[in-house]
Amino acid sequence: MRLLKGRMQLFHAENEFVEWLRAKVWSPGPRVKAGIGDDAAVLAFRRGYEILLKSDMSIEEVHFKAGFHLARSVGHRALARSLSDIAAMGGMPKFALIAIALSQRTAYPWLKSFYAGLLALATRYGVAVVGGDTAVVSHATMVDLVVAGEVEPGRALLRSGARPGDAIYVSGWPGASARGLQLLMGRPRLPLAFLTALRGRTTASRVRTPFNPRHALQSHLYPEPRLTLGRYLLERRLASAAMDVSDGISTDLSRLTEASGVGAVVQLSLFPKPANLQFGRTDWLALALHGGEDYELLFTVSPSKVPLVPPTFQGVPLRRIGEITRSKALRLVGLDGRERGLEPAGYDHFRKA
Amino acid sequence: MRLLKGRMQLFHAENEFVEWLRAKVWSPGPRVKAGIGDDAAVLAFRRGYEILLKSDMSIEEVHFKAGFHLARSVGHRALARSLSDIAAMGGMPKFALIAIALSQRTAYPWLKSFYAGLLALATRYGVAVVGGDTAVVSHATMVDLVVAGEVEPGRALLRSGARPGDAIYVSGWPGASARGLQLLMGRPRLPLAFLTALRGRTTASRVRTPFNPRHALQSHLYPEPRLTLGRYLLERRLASAAMDVSDGISTDLSRLTEASGVGAVVQLSLFPKPANLQFGRTDWLALALHGGEDYELLFTVSPSKVPLVPPTFQGVPLRRIGEITRSKALRLVGLDGRERGLEPAGYDHFRKA
Repeated sequence: MRLLKGRMQLFHAENEFVEWLRAKVWSPGPRVKAGIGDDAAVLAFRRGYEILLKSDMSIEEVHFKAGFHLARSVGHRALARSLSDIAAMGGMPKFALIAIALSQRTAYPWLKSFYAGLLALATRYGVAVVGGDTAVVSHATMVDLVVAGEVEPGRALLRSGARPGDAIYVSGWPGASARGLQLLMGRPRLPLAFLTALRGRTTASRVRTPFNPRHALQSHLYPEPRLTLGRYLLERRLASAAMDVSDGISTDLSRLTEASGVGAVVQLSLFPKPANLQFGRTDWLALALHGGEDYELLFTVSPSKVPLVPPTFQGVPLRRIGEITRSKALRLVGLDGRERGLEPAGYDHFRKA
Repeated sequence: MRLLKGRMQLFHAENEFVEWLRAKVWSPGPRVKAGIGDDAAVLAFRRGYEILLKSDMSIEEVHFKAGFHLARSVGHRALARSLSDIAAMGGMPKFALIAIALSQRTAYPWLKSFYAGLLALATRYGVAVVGGDTAVVSHATMVDLVVAGEVEPGRALLRSGARPGDAIYVSGWPGASARGLQLLMGRPRLPLAFLTALRGRTTASRVRTPFNPRHALQSHLYPEPRLTLGRYLLERRLASAAMDVSDGISTDLSRLTEASGVGAVVQLSLFPKPANLQFGRTDWLALALHGGEDYELLFTVSPSKVPLVPPTFQGVPLRRIGEITRSKALRLVGLDGRERGLEPAGYDHFRKA
């Protein structure tokens, strides 16, 4: 989900251009195991192992708003987005490059907090920041974060491996991040002291009441990339396909099924629910389905392996929310038990705020 | 050289901040062979070989001006900047990621030409474009280009290897790019047909009259990364240190000597000269010393290897322009034979235009 305009939105509007670009750009060759269209590029530099490479931009007024997002959170999120892509491939992140075009409006304390948030997350996962580029610009701040990681050859979790009959799982609490942004942008404004007290890690032990304000804000401001879960899925060979939920389940599931050439049916009754429904039921389901920036993992498991998937992993629930189908449609079974089509619909926060 | 504000300029102004950042960021460990402060990061993913990783931004109004730079050239230059860094390490580029925040003012033909220029260069050097990120923004267009390459372990050409007595060399025609920009921004405007006829490669055979308008514009709009030269220097073990000239010889030489803990003396009489001095002599020397974006290689050679350096490499002159000194000062011997201090001074095009 993006605050203003979505990644690739331009291209969706201009299919002719996308096709031209793909035809030009996408000539993989044997060394490119996955590229445009998966979470990260999978590259075989030499025989024997593979490198993951991912670039993600964080743009002021698109991915964050200076008035709403603390600098520390902007730094955390910029890195978390790329780490989440590595997690979705089952990889291990190793190195990061930070390119930052810094608005001349921005003061040093902002930059310092930005790096503090970014580096705290990098340190936690053993990611070395090894370079980048810096410039000062007259307009909005823009960050491009590149993470390089590695993965055992031929083992990267791709989007394209889902088969009819596979169970669909999602980790954590989809919708919590979107709920956090609602709270952040709501009136009255939250006290700054409350926000600055939220830092870094969503430790599992702290999530006593999922979707409550503290958890929702934590999920939005400091999303936890599911790196250990990604490794677990890869090492146990549990997942037939995986991706991270960055633009909302409805949108991202459509990408996974498209990459796999399959369809899916999802049951709303299986979604993780807020402990106390302080906000309307419909609203919550919209957040869970279409809210983005959760950075949870969406993965599929073949029927024979379903019994091996634990209900939680390091305190994070792994919910079975549906099933892969041969028919290519995306369908949704509502709380009323009725089935309807599921339209990919990135949630627009500004409309709700 | 940057059109408006220099990379790291912000940091130069705030030493306290740089130190904080370096201390935080720069904890290399055994897997990082070179990082912040060299042309590209040199990373040992596993025992046995090393990966080069470089990120370079190209920002509208900073690195290019929509009114002056053809889209095709902007694409070429965005990639050339990163490839030049790989060349300066003696590496082989393999993969590229393109993150582009596209101004909504920009039309599709612009984007198409941008990619055409970028991909022509990528194809020529066997670089696979494997991913990236795209967003649409309301302000200026901004591109971050990341190149990943490889190099034999322990062999990357670093900035830090220069020793007193080493000869200083520069490839090609430093100052030609700055001259090209002068012509581009001059009055009267150059005919568009003349500019669009300039494409891609500065083949050596074409450079009959260095610094003439065609050569200068070609050097500026379509700089040729010196990848084959970088490999040659590495394979023959000719260079004790190397870097690319992106911000002007005076500035980049000061970086190389600083990294090596040495000084240098440079002789203006040894610089490559324009065939016909259509523009004033002083002006030309200022361009050669302080003009940037040449993407030539600046390298040092130990005295015993000087006889092994050919006068030209694939039609590109390799000029010996000075010598590394024990004293850490940078000195310049003028055309009058008099010695003075050499101040790093990135050339400001807008002042001259």
